[in-house]
Amino acid sequence: MSTVKVSHGDRISSIEVEDGLSLLEAVSKIKDMHIDASCGGKGTCGKCKVKVLKGELPKPSLSESKFLSSKELEDGYRLSCMVPVIGNVDVLVNGINENSNILTEHKGFTGKINPVIKKKYLTLSKPSLDDQRSDLSRILESIPLKNPQVSLSLRRKIPTLIRESEYLITAVFSSDTLLGVEKGNTEDLNYGIAIDIGTTTIAAYLIDMNTGDIVDTISGLNSQKIFGADVISRIEYSMQGPGKLELLQNKIVTQISDLCIFLADRNNVSRNNIYSVILAGNTTMLHLFFGIDPAGIAVAPFIPGFLGSMELHSSAFKDFPLGCAVFSLPSISGYVGADIVSGILATNMHEREELSLLIDIGTNGEIVLGNKDKLFCCSTAAGPAFEGAHITYGLGGITGAVDSAVIENDMIKISTIGNEKALGICGSGIIDIVAVLLKSGLVEFTGRIKDEDEVEGSAAILLQKLKIDKNGPAFIIEEASKTGISDDVVFTQGDIREVQLAKAAISAGILSLLNKAGREISDIDHLFLAGGFGSYISIKSAADIGLIPAELLEKTESVGNTAGLGAISSALSEENYKKTKEIAKITEYVELSSDSFFNMKYMEEMVFPEY
Amino acid sequence: MSTVKVSHGDRISSIEVEDGLSLLEAVSKIKDMHIDASCGGKGTCGKCKVKVLKGELPKPSLSESKFLSSKELEDGYRLSCMVPVIGNVDVLVNGINENSNILTEHKGFTGKINPVIKKKYLTLSKPSLDDQRSDLSRILESIPLKNPQVSLSLRRKIPTLIRESEYLITAVFSSDTLLGVEKGNTEDLNYGIAIDIGTTTIAAYLIDMNTGDIVDTISGLNSQKIFGADVISRIEYSMQGPGKLELLQNKIVTQISDLCIFLADRNNVSRNNIYSVILAGNTTMLHLFFGIDPAGIAVAPFIPGFLGSMELHSSAFKDFPLGCAVFSLPSISGYVGADIVSGILATNMHEREELSLLIDIGTNGEIVLGNKDKLFCCSTAAGPAFEGAHITYGLGGITGAVDSAVIENDMIKISTIGNEKALGICGSGIIDIVAVLLKSGLVEFTGRIKDEDEVEGSAAILLQKLKIDKNGPAFIIEEASKTGISDDVVFTQGDIREVQLAKAAISAGILSLLNKAGREISDIDHLFLAGGFGSYISIKSAADIGLIPAELLEKTESVGNTAGLGAISSALSEENYKKTKEIAKITEYVELSSDSFFNMKYMEEMVFPEY
Repeated sequence: MSTVKVSHGDRISSIEVEDGLSLLEAVSKIKDMHIDASCGGKGTCGKCKVKVLKGELPKPSLSESKFLSSKELEDGYRLSCMVPVIGNVDVLVNGINENSNILTEHKGFTGKINPVIKKKYLTLSKPSLDDQRSDLSRILESIPLKNPQVSLSLRRKIPTLIRESEYLITAVFSSDTLLGVEKGNTEDLNYGIAIDIGTTTIAAYLIDMNTGDIVDTISGLNSQKIFGADVISRIEYSMQGPGKLELLQNKIVTQISDLCIFLADRNNVSRNNIYSVILAGNTTMLHLFFGIDPAGIAVAPFIPGFLGSMELHSSAFKDFPLGCAVFSLPSISGYVGADIVSGILATNMHEREELSLLIDIGTNGEIVLGNKDKLFCCSTAAGPAFEGAHITYGLGGITGAVDSAVIENDMIKISTIGNEKALGICGSGIIDIVAVLLKSGLVEFTGRIKDEDEVEGSAAILLQKLKIDKNGPAFIIEEASKTGISDDVVFTQGDIREVQLAKAAISAGILSLLNKAGREISDIDHLFLAGGFGSYISIKSAADIGLIPAELLEKTESVGNTAGLGAISSALSEENYKKTKEIAKITEYVELSSDSFFNMKYMEEMVFPEY
Repeated sequence: MSTVKVSHGDRISSIEVEDGLSLLEAVSKIKDMHIDASCGGKGTCGKCKVKVLKGELPKPSLSESKFLSSKELEDGYRLSCMVPVIGNVDVLVNGINENSNILTEHKGFTGKINPVIKKKYLTLSKPSLDDQRSDLSRILESIPLKNPQVSLSLRRKIPTLIRESEYLITAVFSSDTLLGVEKGNTEDLNYGIAIDIGTTTIAAYLIDMNTGDIVDTISGLNSQKIFGADVISRIEYSMQGPGKLELLQNKIVTQISDLCIFLADRNNVSRNNIYSVILAGNTTMLHLFFGIDPAGIAVAPFIPGFLGSMELHSSAFKDFPLGCAVFSLPSISGYVGADIVSGILATNMHEREELSLLIDIGTNGEIVLGNKDKLFCCSTAAGPAFEGAHITYGLGGITGAVDSAVIENDMIKISTIGNEKALGICGSGIIDIVAVLLKSGLVEFTGRIKDEDEVEGSAAILLQKLKIDKNGPAFIIEEASKTGISDDVVFTQGDIREVQLAKAAISAGILSLLNKAGREISDIDHLFLAGGFGSYISIKSAADIGLIPAELLEKTESVGNTAGLGAISSALSEENYKKTKEIAKITEYVELSSDSFFNMKYMEEMVFPEY
């Protein structure tokens, strides 16, 4: 065992770990510390840099020399994923995404409130020789349960409690389970927490089940991020050996526990008055949360362990700090999860006469097309490009991320989240930048950055921002002197290629669903752009780069985190919760990997619109 | 902490206990050690005698002097319930009812087999891009579950198992729960255990769910006996303070675990192939098994914590050695339990056209009257007299108990269980003895033992067996020289009074139900005598003393342990299991404690028939 001491800002933490563990893994064991490592610790992304202040370590590996300059190596910088702990060591960590201010948004719930967990104050008649019903029957006969389920621990609690409260109690129940019994009238204290587990971001909403109000919201980066940026790298990590799946599960369950407690405490809500946690999320994230092996999802034919909704008690999880029901919404396939079912519910496209298209671009890009008669869905390898992965200076939607770009006075003008010095570029910035480059004529429709002699007019001024190094040409988005990273923030030819791939996947996905449904783009009445990404991009830029069909521009609406919204609405309405099951059942999944129409369109759609 | 060393036969055990605990409680903590103490450790029955070999103890208390002769005290005998441990002590215990050979019996199951837990071998189609159902759906869609419930731990197990077994698996399921999944075809290994938890005796049956065969049977004294002979004293013990209920629960759960393991091992049945434990028992015993406070049952208006059937997984119990479903049958009231519901099912009286009477005399005496149209039931304080409690030399049906008595050659001739030297008298012996004494003219119909001068003819010879001491007159049933206890086994005037009380309660109960139903004794077509007691008594003697109506003699049938039989039949037939719920619902409980008709009849029925 060795001690790893980690300095980050003005926080210093220590942890005892077994020798042989990587520095990345060691740091991840510290509560609330997550070093970004989008490759999942394979030494291929170079993002997990730390500075070693003290302590012995093995000599730098080849992959470290690739990502670190000789100056950096001299100064003690190392890739934390590649360095095993072999003795006590002190490290300085900068890039920890602690408390990152991820943007979330929500709309209020406007439907009829009929929460999945209800409370009812009961003034029970006292027993007598003429009324010898058992304590439990006395309660059950006063509430409308279809097929009453009562846990043994609750049955044990009832006889004492019912007498102590002199037969004045509040029952807590779902449609077929008596969940709890409380002394006196506590009807007005009924809270739930809706959670969307995204691959990158987790959003949690504290809901007042009596009023439907969203009392508070919090979000954070998924703490599993250090094990890989996308679902595939997480699944691969889970398959690395015994205990890895449990480690991933533990990470996410702990994080969700912390979010729940934080929400309760910040709002002076007793933990005892939170009766439900309702989860949306993609299929893999739900597998990891429940500790169910997701390996089958990673390889063809992409088989998940489960898809249906889950209704459990929190006691199924070790050390869960709330005693409450845990619901998860149902998924459709390995790559179209409960987050999309939730999105369909939130946009109500399953009940509309008109044809709607829902695009949720998160770490994957899921697309749903249909109306009340029929729904089709697919998942495209849009990849996490729009979340900043695979983009040289890509970032999530955190403070300091370039989130927009326009041409002003023949120059690229950017803004950053929080108006801080630029640290990198997030999804909305990436799309704006590509749109700007295309429309100014610096990049041709094939995605190629033009040569100097091909550029004319005002675009030529922008050429000042082009630099060419061993990695090829790149545009300087913000110069080193103005950034927070002491280096230029650039957008490279390779980054443009990443956007092309993602754009092609989404476009071809849309066309494939239309083809399947026998419809055309002009038949679409609504385009819902969902996800954190959907909320913040310029719809115009998205159309400019051909990510969404230009003719749908006027019909496009940013609908925010529909996964979260759907979860909230399922928590607040038993009917909506039931509808999610129906949606999951009737929505037809279209497998694109074996679809020749998709593959043809994917090639065709690789090009940008011509300007 | 002190060490208590216990010698019993050739077994010596030691246990570390806290000072202050009684010796009785200390010994009870040793696995398989139960000292008989029918008063529940209050120092009022004198049965928990032990010999102290070494160690310091407080001076004998008053109640000890009452039950122990000065010779016994001199020799180191003490009442274990009255002596607190105050230091290390070695004791010799004789009366431990370990491995007592209690009589049980059963009939085979003859109905249609449709067990509550089924197994089905599934040859699942392998997944493909055209069949992307989840692992779980693939299984669930192949078995007929109404509203599928699957535990989290099973969901975790499925993805690996389904692949390892190459999609050839056996599903284990009840009507709405998938309980397990096994590799390959294991259909022919499906066992269940039916258990009747009596206040005095526990009977367990290992059942082959494929054939309906009762593979093996075992029974033992309820290990909670040291905490009281009847339900009231057990409940009182459970109310003595924190942890007492848990202690009682732990005792019975451990005993049932042991019985299950013993049955499995003795029959070379893998513990993994036992999928259900189905429980009958009286209401209080079921409360204690589940750890649910039974306090409300002890006092008017006699309210149980629960009555309905319970469907749990064994994981609800700490350290339960089987991973299986645990079912309990439903009860009717605080004093008419699942054992009686089970008895109704076993005798089929709820489906018969003819009027039937069921009498189950165990530690209480429960009576059911009715037919397919209507059933009435009641519980009488018949008390545990017929199980040997409150009878000076009373014993359960163990080896050495006098189990029959007849007059032969003007002398009382007895037999004992196992033809061993008499140790005491069990229920069937008690009834025979009273019948003999009545019919020979030694006891008059009021229950009074006649004076010498009142006795005539051959009966006078029997007078030789009458002895009179400070406790009044008593008949010597077996002389000290022939018994196994170095003392006369006698039957006293007080014992006769106990039988009168019990007999009056049963008779008055029968009359009360008839009154409620508007029927007469002559309307009864069947009298079923249930319980271990019912199996072994002489029906003729029971009629002779007026315990059962003489006119029903020809219509009376001993039906054995119907509680166990009903549990077996519920385990083997889902339909029967459902019927128990129906029976519990429709059977009307008649509360006798407040019934003036009953009270009047109770007084009238105190007398024996006249001879």
